[in-house]
Amino acid sequence: MQSEDFDLAHHFVHVALPKPGRIRELLAMVSRVHCGHLDRAYPLWQMYLIEGLADGRFAVYIKVHHALMDGIAGIRLLMRSMSTNLDTSLTLPPPWEVPTQRSKPRHLPLPSPTSGGLSALRSLAREHVGSVVPVVRELRSNVRDIIRRNPDFVFAGQAPRTIFNQKVSATRRFAAQSYSTPRIKAVAEAYGATANDVVLAMCAGALRRYLLDLGELPKRPLVAAVPVSVRREGSDHANEVSFTFCHLATHLYNPEARLRAINSCMDYNKAHLQRLSPDQSLVCSAFKLLPGALNAVTRLVDNSALANVIISHVPGPRRPLYWQGAKLCGLYPASLVVDSGALNIPLISRHDFVDVGLIACRKAVPQVQRLLQYLEDALLELEATIHATVIPN
Amino acid sequence: MQSEDFDLAHHFVHVALPKPGRIRELLAMVSRVHCGHLDRAYPLWQMYLIEGLADGRFAVYIKVHHALMDGIAGIRLLMRSMSTNLDTSLTLPPPWEVPTQRSKPRHLPLPSPTSGGLSALRSLAREHVGSVVPVVRELRSNVRDIIRRNPDFVFAGQAPRTIFNQKVSATRRFAAQSYSTPRIKAVAEAYGATANDVVLAMCAGALRRYLLDLGELPKRPLVAAVPVSVRREGSDHANEVSFTFCHLATHLYNPEARLRAINSCMDYNKAHLQRLSPDQSLVCSAFKLLPGALNAVTRLVDNSALANVIISHVPGPRRPLYWQGAKLCGLYPASLVVDSGALNIPLISRHDFVDVGLIACRKAVPQVQRLLQYLEDALLELEATIHATVIPN
Repeated sequence: MQSEDFDLAHHFVHVALPKPGRIRELLAMVSRVHCGHLDRAYPLWQMYLIEGLADGRFAVYIKVHHALMDGIAGIRLLMRSMSTNLDTSLTLPPPWEVPTQRSKPRHLPLPSPTSGGLSALRSLAREHVGSVVPVVRELRSNVRDIIRRNPDFVFAGQAPRTIFNQKVSATRRFAAQSYSTPRIKAVAEAYGATANDVVLAMCAGALRRYLLDLGELPKRPLVAAVPVSVRREGSDHANEVSFTFCHLATHLYNPEARLRAINSCMDYNKAHLQRLSPDQSLVCSAFKLLPGALNAVTRLVDNSALANVIISHVPGPRRPLYWQGAKLCGLYPASLVVDSGALNIPLISRHDFVDVGLIACRKAVPQVQRLLQYLEDALLELEATIHATVIPN
Repeated sequence: MQSEDFDLAHHFVHVALPKPGRIRELLAMVSRVHCGHLDRAYPLWQMYLIEGLADGRFAVYIKVHHALMDGIAGIRLLMRSMSTNLDTSLTLPPPWEVPTQRSKPRHLPLPSPTSGGLSALRSLAREHVGSVVPVVRELRSNVRDIIRRNPDFVFAGQAPRTIFNQKVSATRRFAAQSYSTPRIKAVAEAYGATANDVVLAMCAGALRRYLLDLGELPKRPLVAAVPVSVRREGSDHANEVSFTFCHLATHLYNPEARLRAINSCMDYNKAHLQRLSPDQSLVCSAFKLLPGALNAVTRLVDNSALANVIISHVPGPRRPLYWQGAKLCGLYPASLVVDSGALNIPLISRHDFVDVGLIACRKAVPQVQRLLQYLEDALLELEATIHATVIPN
């Protein structure tokens, strides 16, 4: 990453929190720093070392342009700069000196005039023509699901228009908290769902309450755009992500019913994704985006949006990690918001905690930090339904 | 300034310096904060309270969009939020609650259909036609000075192209220091110049040495654009500024000769400005800008620039001031840079010190903080020439 005029002081910044140095001061600082743009005259990353937390810990804020890497690639790079051993961690280089593991580029078999050129071209064509059948089959199934009004089939554009679907200001608000992985897994097990389903149900419960507070809960259920990694094993390519859509059942009062509906929708999505190769799933995602994208341009259906919120759940480290002699206590993703996408909820799952980072437009999504408590409350509600329904049986 | 959804936490920000809390850490923080854009979704100002200086002092950084007020209006507002008395200062409201003193708007005499309409129109026309004669006289004198190659006549576009005249990055570097007002005045008196001439000569000496260090000093003298206030008494209008140009005699080795050349050029400028009303001087400034502006578009003369640096010297408080119980130790202006204007040197004169704030593109103007020492050295050099030449007589 280095060049001759590499200006480390521009990329590595030392800052401190004002007193009393609570998490509140940390979140306020990260919110402010996150508003700034990376300067295109420099390599597109910055790292802030933040001291001054009252409990003696320190924080690191890293900003990398999405053109350089997606969340998963970023976390992999970060994990390689840490160690499972405290002493070893002191000897590891800083993240900007960790070499990236690039996967082998997929070479297209270029036709050579001397030998085998035509047959190579033919095999290339066969490979891509072969994709047409599964894609057409998937799209035919989508149409069938629309006609049958299958609640598990969600397409971009069926989302109701909410306060999250407006133009955003240039000011961000970041809020972050950790939620117990074992507790989330226990709920998942009790309902035969995945931990990811439970996390989506927590988001559903929290968003429902937040919008109810503001008198802004729509009648139709919210729709989350859920990025799905189509990353191949060992790849560090910048961006390898497809999208799936999940309705969050926010029209339902009962937390258990919401979880079951989300679980069913995500099972449907996964079954369909598994039938497709990464490239094919990208093509189908594009088709699913089409109605919403067309509507965003034509505004034919004014009370609909592409989606209401992006919820991306990324696997993080599964063991305690150390960075330069310090134990990693939390790894909070800070993503981006865009016009009509004023709230973004990325999550990183670790062995002990699921770390949530909320990023929102400060103006469009007032007091987004309330969602942190509502997420915890939603988990408590789900736990209560287990005790009420599962254990007595 | 307040409205119902006024979000004080967005405008008033509490931050702290990392250890060891030197001026170096303060300048690094202000440099970073200064890079950020004001969000147009909010009123266009922000105020940072900065704690953590090792000597127990604190700093305040205020950013106001130029569309709201120019430097002089800003300083006046700031001075009204301070007091010459420590105890009184505790009772004053914060700057954002200080009412602005607007001058009476200049009403145009609107023609009324009933009475005097035509005569009002006639007097309005007479007022503006009356401006044509002094403007034409001034422009004729300008042409004469060009033909006679009068060194005191400087127009935009005669500046040599330097490293300051390139595209700028989005990253800023701020550096600031105070220089003794009595020492500057003593030099001015010794040479029959003004304190402003001496400050310009200090800038000339510092810039000359800085560019020499880099092997970038042009043969032709640098040209400074020097904003001149055409503000009327008691006015708080946002922007009331005209421009004059001063060559900085950086082709001369002798500091005394540089000061004398600058003094002569500024005397010429002032004599010409005094012949014109504020509006007329604006028209003449526009004519003087024309050659440089045309060249900026056509690039006919590629080694010329509009000007090399903006040096704006603004009068500040003339007595010790207190803000919320704390004594004001320095009032450093932080201005803006633009493409082809990668360095900006605003100054505020107080009774005891002239406070300089350098703002530069971090990439185009490497290590701009060196100029701080060079400014002090330039003052020392000028003082040395007095002792060498004036006192022995």
